[in-house]
Amino acid sequence: MTGYSVLSGGTVVSSTTTVRGDVLVKDGKIAAVGEFGDLPLDGVERVDVGGMLLVPGGVDVHTHIDSPMMGTVTADDFESATIAAAVGGTTTVVDFAMQPKGNGLLESLEAHHAKARGKAVVDYGFHMCITDLYPGAVGEFGEIVQSGVSSFKVFMAYRGTLMLDDGQMFDVLRQARHTGGQVCVHAENGDVIDRLAADLVAAGKTGPEYHEVARPPSTEVEAVRRAIRIARMADAPLYFVHLSTEGAVEAVAEAQSRDWAIAGETCTHYLTLGREFYDRPGFEPAKVVLTPPLRTQEHRDALWRGLRAGSLGVVSSDHCPFCLEEKRRLGEHDFRLVPNGGPGVEHRMLVLYGEGVARGRISLTKFVDLTATTPARQFGLTGKGQLAPGFDADIVVLDPQGSTTISAATQRQRMDYTPYEGWTVPGAVKAVYSRGELICRDGVFVGSAGRGRFVERAAL
Amino acid sequence: MTGYSVLSGGTVVSSTTTVRGDVLVKDGKIAAVGEFGDLPLDGVERVDVGGMLLVPGGVDVHTHIDSPMMGTVTADDFESATIAAAVGGTTTVVDFAMQPKGNGLLESLEAHHAKARGKAVVDYGFHMCITDLYPGAVGEFGEIVQSGVSSFKVFMAYRGTLMLDDGQMFDVLRQARHTGGQVCVHAENGDVIDRLAADLVAAGKTGPEYHEVARPPSTEVEAVRRAIRIARMADAPLYFVHLSTEGAVEAVAEAQSRDWAIAGETCTHYLTLGREFYDRPGFEPAKVVLTPPLRTQEHRDALWRGLRAGSLGVVSSDHCPFCLEEKRRLGEHDFRLVPNGGPGVEHRMLVLYGEGVARGRISLTKFVDLTATTPARQFGLTGKGQLAPGFDADIVVLDPQGSTTISAATQRQRMDYTPYEGWTVPGAVKAVYSRGELICRDGVFVGSAGRGRFVERAAL
Amino acid sequence: MTGYSVLSGGTVVSSTTTVRGDVLVKDGKIAAVGEFGDLPLDGVERVDVGGMLLVPGGVDVHTHIDSPMMGTVTADDFESATIAAAVGGTTTVVDFAMQPKGNGLLESLEAHHAKARGKAVVDYGFHMCITDLYPGAVGEFGEIVQSGVSSFKVFMAYRGTLMLDDGQMFDVLRQARHTGGQVCVHAENGDVIDRLAADLVAAGKTGPEYHEVARPPSTEVEAVRRAIRIARMADAPLYFVHLSTEGAVEAVAEAQSRDWAIAGETCTHYLTLGREFYDRPGFEPAKVVLTPPLRTQEHRDALWRGLRAGSLGVVSSDHCPFCLEEKRRLGEHDFRLVPNGGPGVEHRMLVLYGEGVARGRISLTKFVDLTATTPARQFGLTGKGQLAPGFDADIVVLDPQGSTTISAATQRQRMDYTPYEGWTVPGAVKAVYSRGELICRDGVFVGSAGRGRFVERAAL
Amino acid sequence: MTGYSVLSGGTVVSSTTTVRGDVLVKDGKIAAVGEFGDLPLDGVERVDVGGMLLVPGGVDVHTHIDSPMMGTVTADDFESATIAAAVGGTTTVVDFAMQPKGNGLLESLEAHHAKARGKAVVDYGFHMCITDLYPGAVGEFGEIVQSGVSSFKVFMAYRGTLMLDDGQMFDVLRQARHTGGQVCVHAENGDVIDRLAADLVAAGKTGPEYHEVARPPSTEVEAVRRAIRIARMADAPLYFVHLSTEGAVEAVAEAQSRDWAIAGETCTHYLTLGREFYDRPGFEPAKVVLTPPLRTQEHRDALWRGLRAGSLGVVSSDHCPFCLEEKRRLGEHDFRLVPNGGPGVEHRMLVLYGEGVARGRISLTKFVDLTATTPARQFGLTGKGQLAPGFDADIVVLDPQGSTTISAATQRQRMDYTPYEGWTVPGAVKAVYSRGELICRDGVFVGSAGRGRFVERAAL
Repeated sequence: MTGYSVLSGGTVVSSTTTVRGDVLVKDGKIAAVGEFGDLPLDGVERVDVGGMLLVPGGVDVHTHIDSPMMGTVTADDFESATIAAAVGGTTTVVDFAMQPKGNGLLESLEAHHAKARGKAVVDYGFHMCITDLYPGAVGEFGEIVQSGVSSFKVFMAYRGTLMLDDGQMFDVLRQARHTGGQVCVHAENGDVIDRLAADLVAAGKTGPEYHEVARPPSTEVEAVRRAIRIARMADAPLYFVHLSTEGAVEAVAEAQSRDWAIAGETCTHYLTLGREFYDRPGFEPAKVVLTPPLRTQEHRDALWRGLRAGSLGVVSSDHCPFCLEEKRRLGEHDFRLVPNGGPGVEHRMLVLYGEGVARGRISLTKFVDLTATTPARQFGLTGKGQLAPGFDADIVVLDPQGSTTISAATQRQRMDYTPYEGWTVPGAVKAVYSRGELICRDGVFVGSAGRGRFVERAAL
Repeated sequence: MTGYSVLSGGTVVSSTTTVRGDVLVKDGKIAAVGEFGDLPLDGVERVDVGGMLLVPGGVDVHTHIDSPMMGTVTADDFESATIAAAVGGTTTVVDFAMQPKGNGLLESLEAHHAKARGKAVVDYGFHMCITDLYPGAVGEFGEIVQSGVSSFKVFMAYRGTLMLDDGQMFDVLRQARHTGGQVCVHAENGDVIDRLAADLVAAGKTGPEYHEVARPPSTEVEAVRRAIRIARMADAPLYFVHLSTEGAVEAVAEAQSRDWAIAGETCTHYLTLGREFYDRPGFEPAKVVLTPPLRTQEHRDALWRGLRAGSLGVVSSDHCPFCLEEKRRLGEHDFRLVPNGGPGVEHRMLVLYGEGVARGRISLTKFVDLTATTPARQFGLTGKGQLAPGFDADIVVLDPQGSTTISAATQRQRMDYTPYEGWTVPGAVKAVYSRGELICRDGVFVGSAGRGRFVERAAL
Repeated sequence: MTGYSVLSGGTVVSSTTTVRGDVLVKDGKIAAVGEFGDLPLDGVERVDVGGMLLVPGGVDVHTHIDSPMMGTVTADDFESATIAAAVGGTTTVVDFAMQPKGNGLLESLEAHHAKARGKAVVDYGFHMCITDLYPGAVGEFGEIVQSGVSSFKVFMAYRGTLMLDDGQMFDVLRQARHTGGQVCVHAENGDVIDRLAADLVAAGKTGPEYHEVARPPSTEVEAVRRAIRIARMADAPLYFVHLSTEGAVEAVAEAQSRDWAIAGETCTHYLTLGREFYDRPGFEPAKVVLTPPLRTQEHRDALWRGLRAGSLGVVSSDHCPFCLEEKRRLGEHDFRLVPNGGPGVEHRMLVLYGEGVARGRISLTKFVDLTATTPARQFGLTGKGQLAPGFDADIVVLDPQGSTTISAATQRQRMDYTPYEGWTVPGAVKAVYSRGELICRDGVFVGSAGRGRFVERAAL
Repeated sequence: MTGYSVLSGGTVVSSTTTVRGDVLVKDGKIAAVGEFGDLPLDGVERVDVGGMLLVPGGVDVHTHIDSPMMGTVTADDFESATIAAAVGGTTTVVDFAMQPKGNGLLESLEAHHAKARGKAVVDYGFHMCITDLYPGAVGEFGEIVQSGVSSFKVFMAYRGTLMLDDGQMFDVLRQARHTGGQVCVHAENGDVIDRLAADLVAAGKTGPEYHEVARPPSTEVEAVRRAIRIARMADAPLYFVHLSTEGAVEAVAEAQSRDWAIAGETCTHYLTLGREFYDRPGFEPAKVVLTPPLRTQEHRDALWRGLRAGSLGVVSSDHCPFCLEEKRRLGEHDFRLVPNGGPGVEHRMLVLYGEGVARGRISLTKFVDLTATTPARQFGLTGKGQLAPGFDADIVVLDPQGSTTISAATQRQRMDYTPYEGWTVPGAVKAVYSRGELICRDGVFVGSAGRGRFVERAAL
């Protein structure tokens, strides 16, 4: 009898249903969900969550923590990033283990393990990010997948640093499939972008606002359609990270309607921020120098439609934080040198709740699906993403009557800005449980560094 | 404490997850799902379902029970049809309340209520089937929806008896939307079909095998695409019954990818039987004189793809039984007079389990989704279709190791044939609970006539 | 040697080429085209057309002359209409022979012949317009086609007066194909339009400006797509009259890319006038109460694209003139009663030259193709539409340096308005030859009534 | 009066019309076309061509003459190739001037000029084939275009030897547009092909029959769609050489329906030979080791549809001859080393006439359009491709009653095989005129080496 506790009186939300019910927890896992009414649960610790929503802890499958990129390193380490995640309601991250050019895949992966160990406060997994497909590299995929890293990432942009060519992508796709892994792709036609960017700089257009001009929607759409076709030639599944355009959503929907194994995510910022940000004065646009760039309303509408229609199954943060000062240091005179990325792991859940659920764009069950259930299922996190018996007791207690104000001054991300500065969104995270342990209370992290565990993800 | 019982030790399947767990039942509803382990459930009746699958009772949203059609009446009344449903694992039917031409909608609906009362053994709802849109008919939609009949059915075929023209369909769509109802449509271009059929008969091709020739795939595809466009003009949701062709699946998928409120079902027989049936000798083809007709393998493949991709969300039976002798009596000399329809409510679940799950075409969770969760959600059956707290305890105990042989000799449908004669399919229905009451045990109905209740379905 | 004449020194334009050259004419036909240089053409009458463009006389395949419609009769008879055509550079019209409901096809056709005889000043043909498909009607198609009337027209709108249902259209398509005829279709979903219009009137929106609101683009697009599918079921070619929307152009292009025998025309006014016309005060919008209505810029752009891409092969006038006073008399209090149509046969060539060629939207060869070559070829006018040996010497001498001002005060159409009032367009028709005979000089008609001949058009 | 001659009594075919008429020639150009009847053409030389078809001399825009490729050189020099062209009815070729890697564009072009001078017997132009986009290369485009070479060719396959990457293709497209040139592209995804081929060889599948297996249709379709999108980003026109698949035709048709400047050709062999050729024994399949490979009937049907629908506007030969012995010498043990290509310039016209016109797949006017009019117009050959006043008197006298047997033993191509060995096709080339000069009579070349002139082609 010992060891049971129950969150009682709340509304339990799954990806399909919203029910009044209690959640019974034991040994860090969910034992049962239901209404226990007059059952004698003697000795069970009871936590009253009346009036609250109980949602599965968020699963953010797109973060870049402590990661070398564009001549610098992302601003968060695993402690700061996962604390930020936790206070924002995210209890699992799947981070990109970057392969520095010239390094082996296995050593790169081990190096990333070392960065997380002893620091992460929530559970985490890794994608293996391939930037250098040296001879024999694909031979290591089996060991990588067996170690619980069942996904690979490739880039179709950034020639010379990150990009693989079509043939290499084909190789990765085939070998990933053979070993039970899946491939994530950054889909932009980097070669065309490089030329458009060079033209802009040659014309003296060096400011951060030109970042967007160099990456028109067609550069994403072309790459998405090409990658789908190459995945079909390789007979392999494919997952698109950070889609931002209407054309990309259409391409993915078309593929899915043929029952092809094509999946897509978008990110919080593509849904909620517009290209007007690039019209801000001075170096301000650098805050949203991220790839792909922010788009027009037309594209945002298409992304929301894609979420509702199911073409896009995941909303991630693409947390890739670089302080504004660092962006300025590197790229003040050439937007091509501004590190690409921004913060987001902390505010993904609440911004999506506010802009999505509270504004009536998506249902509460869809919110759970997009932030937890589908990302977990997509990436083999078999014990995450649902409040169901046997799953990890990663639970967020969300107060639908509360509200949250976002500011760089108060955020836990180790950043000097947030693009949501000053936003007040409906909803507040009252408590967060990770494997049954209360780690946040009223926005304050109460857990300990290093408690997060590496999660081995299932192969396909 | 009294009144609890628990189905213990099984595998509980939802539309998204398969978990080991117990199902706790109280007062006809599901109280909780989980692993209760060492919790002291004293006084709770325990039923051992070790090794069994627990799935939500089937929801069959397309039946024609005790229904006048083509000069005769379907062969099952509500008692025989729902007993057949029950032994096959279906615990809810939504039946078409037919409007005889010249009769009012409300009186037609009341007449159908009378047919079900005192007879049905499982819960049931009605769609209002409109065949005669007399002046003022749309004015009655509000009352119909308020009475719990929140869907309407129209036909694009059978001019002179069932068919509405495009303008009338537009009227029905608009008014249904205003009143919170949705519209189901039988989509075939009846006018073209009538001409093709007349040509065949004029050429002496009167046998039942010509039924299929008169209804080529294009007659369905045209009607589907037209109906989608008219629904858009009316800004109303639309549900396609019994889709049978690749082109229809493509049209529905395309609409859904735009986030239009378009849904589609197919039926067991379109997935599992082929047009070769029409090549059988003599009057045998009459067994599958149903509309639309059976199709080629290419179309069946597309339907399965549609189920997996989600374009088609529901598998129904289109149970519309006419005995072979009756078909012969009416249509021996002219296939146009053979009553269109066949039996199916009894075998929908097991045939789909066998051909779908056991053959690896769909997952177990998808099976639950198609047979229970989505049909219930689609049609406002808020307490049906899921094994989740607060839902009706409509539970099927399915033995995945068992098998079932289908035969007219042993079926409960009041029919002299089944198109699945002699099939042995994997899986056996060991027990069926309806609102917590055991109504079938090892294939034998142990409930009582009239225990089924009319279910008021939610408006949109 | 006698009987030869030569138009010398001009630029001869065909649908593919623009060449400097002389046109040698004999016996009403073109004998040769070329540069005769120092050849001794003694006795050949020489007409100097230096600096002029020589284009094939216009072929306008969509006119309604002396035609009963909507409770009145179009304002032009064959004399006034064809004089207007001639001065505008059109030397052949194919007019719709309307079947008054209740009348036989053959008698209706003969009645139309009678109206033209002795009046027409340019050559003419007829389409047989079917509004009442009485039993046996299709049996008369063969005789009609053999008489040189090788096309039929059906309406998908105007239920009760002009509309055929889908089955009847299918019948017409099949029988037309069997007899070597083709079918022209007015594609609008009339049933939906009737309901939208009734709603507007019920809401007190009775002014002519609401005509457009009742006929949204989707009503055309649905009908176009439906008709294409029905034509395919009938395995018959189909020609769409007066397309006005982007969606229609897309549908036609898609069909053509599959090598289906689908063709489409648009009209001068859809290319050059916008829906802003309906915002004019008072009863002014009635001037453009024509079906389909004028559209937005987006649609006009798509129509021009369709012309360039070849999806639309013909620009016709849809000359269907009703005086504004007549429109007011019938429809002042209910836009549904305003006769649908406007004038256009006189200004089609010059407006298209000005808005198309002079503004760089289409080439000069495309202009010839759209106004003469393709309409002639599409409708079996084997001796019309080209300045090539053996073709009728229907020649327009066009001064590209000239200009023409359009006004009701000066037009030859028997109308009290023109929607192009006050426009001055580049280009002037200096001379018009019909079968070698000069019938217009400097905008003045110099021919005689009744000189026009009925042209038997070839079957397919 | 001197210098005139007339081909009299034949049927003159253009891309739009077939007329009885005489062709009057003076000074190597067509003076007039028509029926001169009783005009006194004293002193005009009269050639009787009664019963014959007069078609414009063929324009073959895809040949590789005396060209280094894959470690060898194509088998024909400009004399043998153009004699072969002439006897087959082709009076203009546009040949690919190959840039050997490491050489400058201008010097490569000059070297190709040198190969043709003094040898060619018919008129010729060049495409500039870019294989090495060295810094500054695009800066030479203007001079190249000004010199009458107004098209460039790039490859998306053959990495390491011919292939440009997407960014380089984008550069070429942009600069070509700026200078009035257009780009031709060989569209296959070479990177995927290289991997598929390597796998086959690694599996011991080294015979020439595996060439096809390594180049599935999807490798063409992907590249075509990608190239279209990149051309759009560059806002440049694009011409696809040698399309072979249904998917490619669809992609081109879709682009054209949007009025994008996308054009496509296919070749004689893709229309008339099937992949069954690869099933022939021994080294025989090497005869059709050409890229892309031959395809199935389904694709051939789509290509013919594409010609009729206009999506494909040109049929070229892709004459790229390598003797079978040379193919064996280089590639007997590894199909990747078999030089890719085959002969064709000699038989393009007659094979297309026989398989296309005589079999009813295309009309005679379409034949002229595909073999002469459109290729000439597409590539700025303003004086070629039509029998119209002012055009070069390049005339083929074709006997529709004759027939021609094809054999390596009798062909003028300098080859030891032809894939059409033993075919007898309807139609015979009775006479060929180049700029008014009779150069072939009854299949015998009667002209002189070096009489052919380089034709400067117009910029866009």
